[in-house]
This record gives sequence, C-alpha cells and structure tokens, in this order.
Amino acid sequence: MIKVTLLGAGNVGFHLFSAMHQIEGIEVIQWYNRSLKGLIPFQEKTSITDDLSTLEEADLYLIAVADDALPVISQALENKNGVVAHTAGSVPLKTLENHSAFGVFYPLQTFSKNKTVDFSTIPLCIEANSKPTEKVLFDLAEKLSAPAHRISSDQRKVLHVAAVFVNNFSNHLFAIGEELCEKNQLPFSILQPLINETIDKLNHLSPKEAQTGPALRKDQKTLDSHLQYLEKKVHQQLYSILSSSIQQQHD
Amino acid sequence: MIKVTLLGAGNVGFHLFSAMHQIEGIEVIQWYNRSLKGLIPFQEKTSITDDLSTLEEADLYLIAVADDALPVISQALENKNGVVAHTAGSVPLKTLENHSAFGVFYPLQTFSKNKTVDFSTIPLCIEANSKPTEKVLFDLAEKLSAPAHRISSDQRKVLHVAAVFVNNFSNHLFAIGEELCEKNQLPFSILQPLINETIDKLNHLSPKEAQTGPALRKDQKTLDSHLQYLEKKVHQQLYSILSSSIQQQHD
Repeated sequence: MIKVTLLGAGNVGFHLFSAMHQIEGIEVIQWYNRSLKGLIPFQEKTSITDDLSTLEEADLYLIAVADDALPVISQALENKNGVVAHTAGSVPLKTLENHSAFGVFYPLQTFSKNKTVDFSTIPLCIEANSKPTEKVLFDLAEKLSAPAHRISSDQRKVLHVAAVFVNNFSNHLFAIGEELCEKNQLPFSILQPLINETIDKLNHLSPKEAQTGPALRKDQKTLDSHLQYLEKKVHQQLYSILSSSIQQQHD
Repeated sequence: MIKVTLLGAGNVGFHLFSAMHQIEGIEVIQWYNRSLKGLIPFQEKTSITDDLSTLEEADLYLIAVADDALPVISQALENKNGVVAHTAGSVPLKTLENHSAFGVFYPLQTFSKNKTVDFSTIPLCIEANSKPTEKVLFDLAEKLSAPAHRISSDQRKVLHVAAVFVNNFSNHLFAIGEELCEKNQLPFSILQPLINETIDKLNHLSPKEAQTGPALRKDQKTLDSHLQYLEKKVHQQLYSILSSSIQQQHD
C-alpha cells in the first residue's frame, strides 16, 4: 500500500485522484488545494485541506499545480520524509532538489475535466534523484496500469514542445477548419471522417510517409488558389508557412 | 444496374474501383488510364484501356484524374450520352459544361493506395447541372452506402481548403513531433496516445472548446522557453504564428 498526498485539483490533479482513488494498493490520504471549494465533493473519499501546515506524513507527495505555484508547495514540503514529485512537462527535476527524495511523474496526455481518461493508455514520464525514488514512481505507474518510461528532464522538455505541436496546434487547425465551415453554412461534422482517417493512417505509416496534399506535390495552382481564397491574414500566413515547411521536410 | 466507366487509376480511382466492383447494382464496364500498367492486375475484373477512342457507352463516366488532365479527358467524352462527373475538390462544376449531363462526385477523404477505406463513412459532395443528373450521382452514393451531401462549387472549394488544414497540415504537425522525438532518441509512439485523445475529444467538444495549451492560457514563460528550444527557423515561425492565431481566435 502506497500512501499518497495529492497537491492540486486542476485537470491533472482531478484525473490523478479519480484514477488513484479506485485502485487497491493506493491510498490517497490527503488532497490539498489552494481553494477548498473544488475539493468539497470529494470530502467523503479523502481528507481535504487548503492549509499546507496540516499535511501529514505520506510515502509520496504528488504535486499537480501550475508551474508558478510549484516553489511554494515544494518549500512547504521541506520537512517531509516522503518522495516529492511534480507532474509538469517543462519543469526540470532539479527544481525539487531541496528534498532528499524527489522526482517527476509526468503524464503525457491532455486532460479535460469532464472527460474520463484511461490511465492504461497514458505514457508516464518518470525521472528521479535515486534508484529507490525511481522505484516508488515506477510502482505507482504500474498500479495505475500505465506504460512508464525513464525520461530525462531534457527529453521531457522535447516531449512537451512536441506535445504542443501534435495536440494544441493540430487542434487549432481543426478549429480553423470549423471556422471555415461555419462561415459557409457547412457542418464541421463533414470533416470528421477525414480527421479520423488522418489519425488512423498513423497506425500504418509514419506521419512523414503519410504526408499528402498540394504542398507536397508542389501543385502551385491549388496553393495559389487556396491562398487567394483565405480572408484572414493569419490563415494566409499559416497556409504559406505550413506549405513551405512540408516542402522543406520532403526536399 | 448502373454502368460506370472509370477514368484514372490514382488513389481515388483505385479506391472507387475497389468499392464499386464489389457492389451489386454497379457494373464498372471499363477502366481507362493513361498508362495500362497499373490496370493490368484488374483486367479480369473489368475491361481496361489506355485509348480514349475505345470508350463505350456508359450511364456514368467518373473522372478521377489529376486536375491538369481533366480538360483532355472531358473533351474525349464530348460525344457520349452518359453523365460525366469529376471527383476533384477544387475544380468548379462549370468546367464540364461542354456536356449535356455533368456533375461532381467528390469524396471528402484522404486515400492511400495500400490502406483500404470504408465508403460508408466518406462524405460524398455532389453537385450536378440538373435534377436527373443529380439523382444519378445520389443513387451511386447510396449504392456505396456513403453519406451524400448537396454541395455547391463554392462550398466544395471551402471544404478543400479546410481539408488541407485538418488533414495535410495537422499531419505535418505530427511529422514535426516525430522529427523532434527522433532527434532526441524518443519513439514517436510515445506521442500517439496524446494524438488519439486530441481527436477523441472532438466527439464531445468542438475544436474551439477543446483548445488547451500555453498559448491559450497566455503562459508567456513556457512560450518563450519552447521558442528558445526550437532549432529550425521554420519551426519557430510556426510556433509563433500558431500561438498567435490561437490567441486571436479566443480573444
């Protein structure tokens, strides 16, 4: 049985709690958040607090707060013996070096509050200051049935940047597709089979191999006509630079 | 029974043949391609030709060739009585107005030769010069079990531009993610659960609602650190403009 104190109740904290709470072998003994309000629905499931001075001894303090809030939380945990780990993509391991046992437990996934996630499909990026600490974090991942990877702070930073491209930015391209449809009385749903197939191809081909389209085949006539069609300056810029980036990658 | 002559054996032509060939109620009586080579494996399934002067009478001539080649094919069909329809995203209906019955049968999907597609999920964008011609094309879509939509040439152009954003461009962002991973000894597969979840969210939320990330929350520290990390000029440009486009859309 691992005793976990969770700190933070944003999207990551919420989903970590929901997953850990259901698993035998993990006991969430306390859940801290800067405001109690979001925690009240869970007060029968765990001990909730908004006071860092009331934190009890735990095997693991799992910090899922905004990057800016991390130093304050870390400082409040300085007198604890348990492992202190954060869950952030962009924060180096050494930020927690004021502890004796410290690590990173970064779930490479996007979380929305009202959509359940299946931890058994979420890559957990683990880094720690020692083998025993690393083992605590790998054990937690195993209890969550999640695939765990030993990832350095530098590699984690790469993954965070790559995640912005494949998740935030591709989602924005879908939002541009939606905007173009709506302006022309077309339902966005007409594009969804195409989006699904774009992703499904990645089960068979690498994205570089799967590339198609007017930019790749240097179909200048179509490129020009699309550019002329786009009204917003920022859409024109995106169209030009994405097309040129495709051509550069395939040159 | 509808008698179809198919013209072109690129990705669209190939998948249209594979689908139509299997359906009772559709007979592909002839398949033309500029080179016979690609058609030879199918010569026991239909009559193949590379000679436009040998085309027989059909109910429908379905043209799936490169946009540039369309005028020559269209001209060769001038003395035919059947419906003449092209399958292109960017070509206006009126390009075929030298015929008496003409239309568009545009499958809004991405096709790769070695990956089967399920036409029952492919939106077919149909346009025609008359109601009877439109009916021929809607009937063909119905036989293919494909959802059919009446789409004007202007709307089709929008869909083609939007398709470039949601398919070609988002795929390229995945390819950038892959490039960043590979340069740092990380397998691209570690990003795939995130990509899958990005798409899965669209079953519950519109892409605009689903947007997350440092650009949206105006986390300038992360934006700066990511920009600094990126080595390639074109990746930096994409990162900046995509971030700014997200902020503009949500302002």
